[in-house]
Amino acid sequence: MTRTLELQPLRRDSFSPFGDVIEMAGSRNFAINQGATQRFHDIARIFAEPTDGHAAISLARSQPLPSPLRIEMLERHPLASQAFIPQGDQPFIVVVAPRGERIDSGEIRAFVADGRQGVNYHPGVWHHPLLALAPDQDFIVVDLISPEPNCDEHHFDSADRLLLDYSGLLHKRHPAVGGGAG
Amino acid sequence: MTRTLELQPLRRDSFSPFGDVIEMAGSRNFAINQGATQRFHDIARIFAEPTDGHAAISLARSQPLPSPLRIEMLERHPLASQAFIPQGDQPFIVVVAPRGERIDSGEIRAFVADGRQGVNYHPGVWHHPLLALAPDQDFIVVDLISPEPNCDEHHFDSADRLLLDYSGLLHKRHPAVGGGAG
Repeated sequence: MTRTLELQPLRRDSFSPFGDVIEMAGSRNFAINQGATQRFHDIARIFAEPTDGHAAISLARSQPLPSPLRIEMLERHPLASQAFIPQGDQPFIVVVAPRGERIDSGEIRAFVADGRQGVNYHPGVWHHPLLALAPDQDFIVVDLISPEPNCDEHHFDSADRLLLDYSGLLHKRHPAVGGGAG
Repeated sequence: MTRTLELQPLRRDSFSPFGDVIEMAGSRNFAINQGATQRFHDIARIFAEPTDGHAAISLARSQPLPSPLRIEMLERHPLASQAFIPQGDQPFIVVVAPRGERIDSGEIRAFVADGRQGVNYHPGVWHHPLLALAPDQDFIVVDLISPEPNCDEHHFDSADRLLLDYSGLLHKRHPAVGGGAG
């Protein structure tokens, strides 16, 4: 059976079963530094089970995959949250499925993050590896670095064809940073 | 006595007594996701003493302070690291002093982060609150959110005038994102 995933804008309410949307809009905020800075506070909690590892900040540079894309696998990190925040104001795609030992392909959701939105997957939430929409798209990554196994992969049956079409979003730059480069 | 702090480019070696520079250049990296993503790994460790709090991701929007600026205080967070990573490719200023109960004003250093560089202050490192160079400059913040006191302030003697002049850097946008906006 072939099914095409519908893309929806990333919103806090519809994404809440999977994790946090890291954005200013709708976040509790207050002035600090004598008014020079507004702090949007505690948007995404960093979960890390006690392990021999440590939470850390890494960076990632991603290239787009061809569209339409066949979703062949999702992964999860049972011990910790994992956050991706775009550094260059570029939209990207987020594909997730609820926590659990099995994945019901009818419960897979696909979101478009608008370039200023990051995501923080809660521990155990199934997600597709990074889906950039432009060449050399850069992300800040916050996750657990641990010698213990912390990545499970679920590979879909080849009979179950799940497609994602983001051709119309590829290589488009956010208007605020001007077009052309990349 | 009046002294003007010298501004130096942010570099990993000269910043290492104070914390981590979060940038791709010079970071250990490897391909993941079947080659679609390059991961620059474990650049900045998130330190958080065991407390009732938790590490989290927040956001901050900052306004520039007038230049020349008189450095009147520095602060430190004894229980945890604190990271600031620019989200909009804008340079900013970092002012730090080494860990310790006292601050020797001769040991204060001022750095210019180039807009793609973030910093992660190690626990206890004295630092100035955010010094943006453009209006509405946005940062990703990674720090400890804790009910326990985790911020000490050091106020300088009014006789000891420490000045910082970044007038030449104000409101300049990184060429890669085009000029004019903001």
